[in-house]
Amino acid sequence: MAKQKKSPRPKAETPKGFRDYFGAEVTHRTEMLGKIAAVYHRYGFDALESSGVETVQALGKFLPDVDRPNEGVFAWQEDADSDKPGDWLALRYDLTAPLARVYAQHQNDLPKPYRRYAMGPVWRNEKPGPGRFRQFYQCDADTVGASSVAADAEICAMLADCLEEVGIERGDYIVRVNNRKVLNGVMEVAGLSGDDKEAERGIVLRAIDKLDRLGTDGVRALLGEGRKDESGDFTKGAGLNGAQADVVMGFMQAKRDSGAETVARLRELVADSKVGAEGVDELELISDLMSAGGYGPDRIEIDPSVVRGLGYYTGPVFEAELTFEIKDDKGRTRNFGSVAGGGRYDDLVKRFTGQEVPATGVSIGVDRLLAALDAKGRLDKTADGPVVVTVMDKARMADYQAMVAELRQAGIRAEVYLGNPKNFGNQLKYADKRGSPVAVIEGGDEYEKGVIQIKDLILGAQMAEGATLEEYKELPSQYEVPRDQLVAKVRDILDSQS
Amino acid sequence: MAKQKKSPRPKAETPKGFRDYFGAEVTHRTEMLGKIAAVYHRYGFDALESSGVETVQALGKFLPDVDRPNEGVFAWQEDADSDKPGDWLALRYDLTAPLARVYAQHQNDLPKPYRRYAMGPVWRNEKPGPGRFRQFYQCDADTVGASSVAADAEICAMLADCLEEVGIERGDYIVRVNNRKVLNGVMEVAGLSGDDKEAERGIVLRAIDKLDRLGTDGVRALLGEGRKDESGDFTKGAGLNGAQADVVMGFMQAKRDSGAETVARLRELVADSKVGAEGVDELELISDLMSAGGYGPDRIEIDPSVVRGLGYYTGPVFEAELTFEIKDDKGRTRNFGSVAGGGRYDDLVKRFTGQEVPATGVSIGVDRLLAALDAKGRLDKTADGPVVVTVMDKARMADYQAMVAELRQAGIRAEVYLGNPKNFGNQLKYADKRGSPVAVIEGGDEYEKGVIQIKDLILGAQMAEGATLEEYKELPSQYEVPRDQLVAKVRDILDSQS
Repeated sequence: MAKQKKSPRPKAETPKGFRDYFGAEVTHRTEMLGKIAAVYHRYGFDALESSGVETVQALGKFLPDVDRPNEGVFAWQEDADSDKPGDWLALRYDLTAPLARVYAQHQNDLPKPYRRYAMGPVWRNEKPGPGRFRQFYQCDADTVGASSVAADAEICAMLADCLEEVGIERGDYIVRVNNRKVLNGVMEVAGLSGDDKEAERGIVLRAIDKLDRLGTDGVRALLGEGRKDESGDFTKGAGLNGAQADVVMGFMQAKRDSGAETVARLRELVADSKVGAEGVDELELISDLMSAGGYGPDRIEIDPSVVRGLGYYTGPVFEAELTFEIKDDKGRTRNFGSVAGGGRYDDLVKRFTGQEVPATGVSIGVDRLLAALDAKGRLDKTADGPVVVTVMDKARMADYQAMVAELRQAGIRAEVYLGNPKNFGNQLKYADKRGSPVAVIEGGDEYEKGVIQIKDLILGAQMAEGATLEEYKELPSQYEVPRDQLVAKVRDILDSQS
Repeated sequence: MAKQKKSPRPKAETPKGFRDYFGAEVTHRTEMLGKIAAVYHRYGFDALESSGVETVQALGKFLPDVDRPNEGVFAWQEDADSDKPGDWLALRYDLTAPLARVYAQHQNDLPKPYRRYAMGPVWRNEKPGPGRFRQFYQCDADTVGASSVAADAEICAMLADCLEEVGIERGDYIVRVNNRKVLNGVMEVAGLSGDDKEAERGIVLRAIDKLDRLGTDGVRALLGEGRKDESGDFTKGAGLNGAQADVVMGFMQAKRDSGAETVARLRELVADSKVGAEGVDELELISDLMSAGGYGPDRIEIDPSVVRGLGYYTGPVFEAELTFEIKDDKGRTRNFGSVAGGGRYDDLVKRFTGQEVPATGVSIGVDRLLAALDAKGRLDKTADGPVVVTVMDKARMADYQAMVAELRQAGIRAEVYLGNPKNFGNQLKYADKRGSPVAVIEGGDEYEKGVIQIKDLILGAQMAEGATLEEYKELPSQYEVPRDQLVAKVRDILDSQS
């Protein structure tokens, strides 16, 4: 018989594509979510929190990325090993599919229209890559049950307010608006309106969604005969002739210096297409509503080159882009790019109820936005380490606990050193690692005299490492005060540091 | 050939055991988590957020509930259908197992001791029941790498501060402390210390963990020969004789009027057991440290009847109980009971690294705490519906948008009615459903005259339903003001309502 092996130790690792967030990474995000929630709330949106788990059936297949229609979810079957296996369950991949389920389930109890916001993690079972994780935050606001384009306009205004609220200054962002109906009109003009042209329309949608990646030449090839990519694979095109392709390309390049000119150009392109004219009217109305609310072209503009998600949305489409430049990992200058997007999707609830319910919404990419603020140096990086009360004599732990209790009651972040106190140097290294602003020392001598030593660690940082206790005490950044002046002196030092 | 059936509509339902949270249910919890995080932070704890998904291997089997050792997790295998199936992944069932993994993985980068807090959802694959959900929030703080009992004392003090911070008044709660080592000492005295007595010790641990459910008679039966439950099933007992069982029962009933008396009684019980004496010393020290920090017996007490989790923890064990009475669903008066618990567990990291790392921590049951505040009427139930600007003329939507923009910029929650405006009654019903404090009306006449109607909906609530527009305008709670006094008048009304 083979010798029984001891089971090996488990690996202390996150699963591939997942990560941990520490300290300020967590609190910066929490703060940002709080600020965005406050704006959403001010606009009349109510909080909704559904669970991370949904039935696969309810979740459906709604991922907006047309490139990856089979992109996976994390799914499992209830009681898979039993006689009666249950429903398939899955982790939500976004916050929109759960909203559709919630609205269909609770519609009798919800106000109509229903404005709701939601924030929380979502999961995607896709290949992880650098900076690409399988769990990430979404932060959405949607209005369900409002067909008026005023609902779209409101969401664009709210998006602008959110960006300013979290610290993106006016001038550093632009909310760009496009409309799927205009594209539909353009396709009509290009001869792609018949029921028999559905395949071609699909190819056009996928092609323009790739504008960022393939550039105009690549898209034009896909509008025509087709395109061979670098690996030699051939993608069949929509078969448009030159004039037809010109109309579609013209749509994406229709942006002019002013909104009025852009609208005029779009009217030209959609010619006598009814749906196209409707789309242009909607864009014009959004623009008017925005101006009325004080949101001018410095914040919101009509831009037909916004193509991401056009295949998914059914009416207005919007995207918020940060316009400032940053250095990327390789030191190259580039625009920061998109941090939020959304639009109108009028058929999400229909699969549950059979009724078409108009809806529009936005999703803010919180992690991208945090990266942007970081790149601009606008995240508060002030060290907020605790005041550390060092332990000179284990038997007097109660004194030290009383000190931190006083500090905390005064609202000052503070802790007693709880490691092995034998080596004083380790206590100082610990304070250093925590980014502590102040250390408090009460040895036997101090205790006898009724005093304590209070050390300004920011002032004394450069000399701290390796100093003996005696040297340390003599640094000019150290103060001896009566014990009952602990809180007052610590506060003095903290004030002087800020 | 059978006729192809149309695939049925998906059901709009949460999976069994999951639920949705709306509006104030979400924001009350968010606020509570924020308050608790602020206390944790003031005590020097740093935020940590790990993902909801872990490898099954890393998660291990650490559920503290000895009754349900096989309690399930939601798990699935990566690439289960491929040639190379991957790791088994699972949703975390608590925040402690991920902490052990994080500490083992990142220990070179973390300060030692490492104080961290974490809050977020956890998932349990267990049978749902009334008020028992398969996803719920945990809100933990733990200190890893500190063997000093001062770390336990600190966590007890922090727990008391958290309860007061979220609105539980002093006198309405008590933090009770016990110690597993005292029980170990008691077992020694009862003759259960040998290596050959492991099975009996296990039976004793499980028995006392059931004190709440079985009462003293039931526990005593399990300490002796065994116990037959109502269904007739027999559970084998630990086989203690009367005197031995008396010692164990005496431990659970050792609480006296003062901490000093309780300590004295425990010393009596553990006799000359070394580990028992150590446990009693620790309890005494915790009590001293607490007093030094100003946390007296009105907030924290030694109570050997705290038995929950004694099988899981290795040293001090604590529990926060709310002492006020509430009415349950059936109108019966009962104590609200436990809202938080924790203790010392010194072997959690060992399975990863082989090293024993001391750790202690607490978990606050946020949902229980919210229920408690609700029962005491201490949740802010003030309606905070938005000011609703009604739509009298669709063509003037830009005016209405300008009004809400002004209100929002003044920090007032406001929205334009975005449903179909044809039926004015529906707009009022909507405002009612939203709990709106104020409605703004600008019809054609008002527009001509440069005025608006501002309606106090709280004052006018009782008369609103069914009123015609004309009647509605004549209610005494309605004011006609110049358009440019919109914000000032709305603010007046809001102030008068609060």
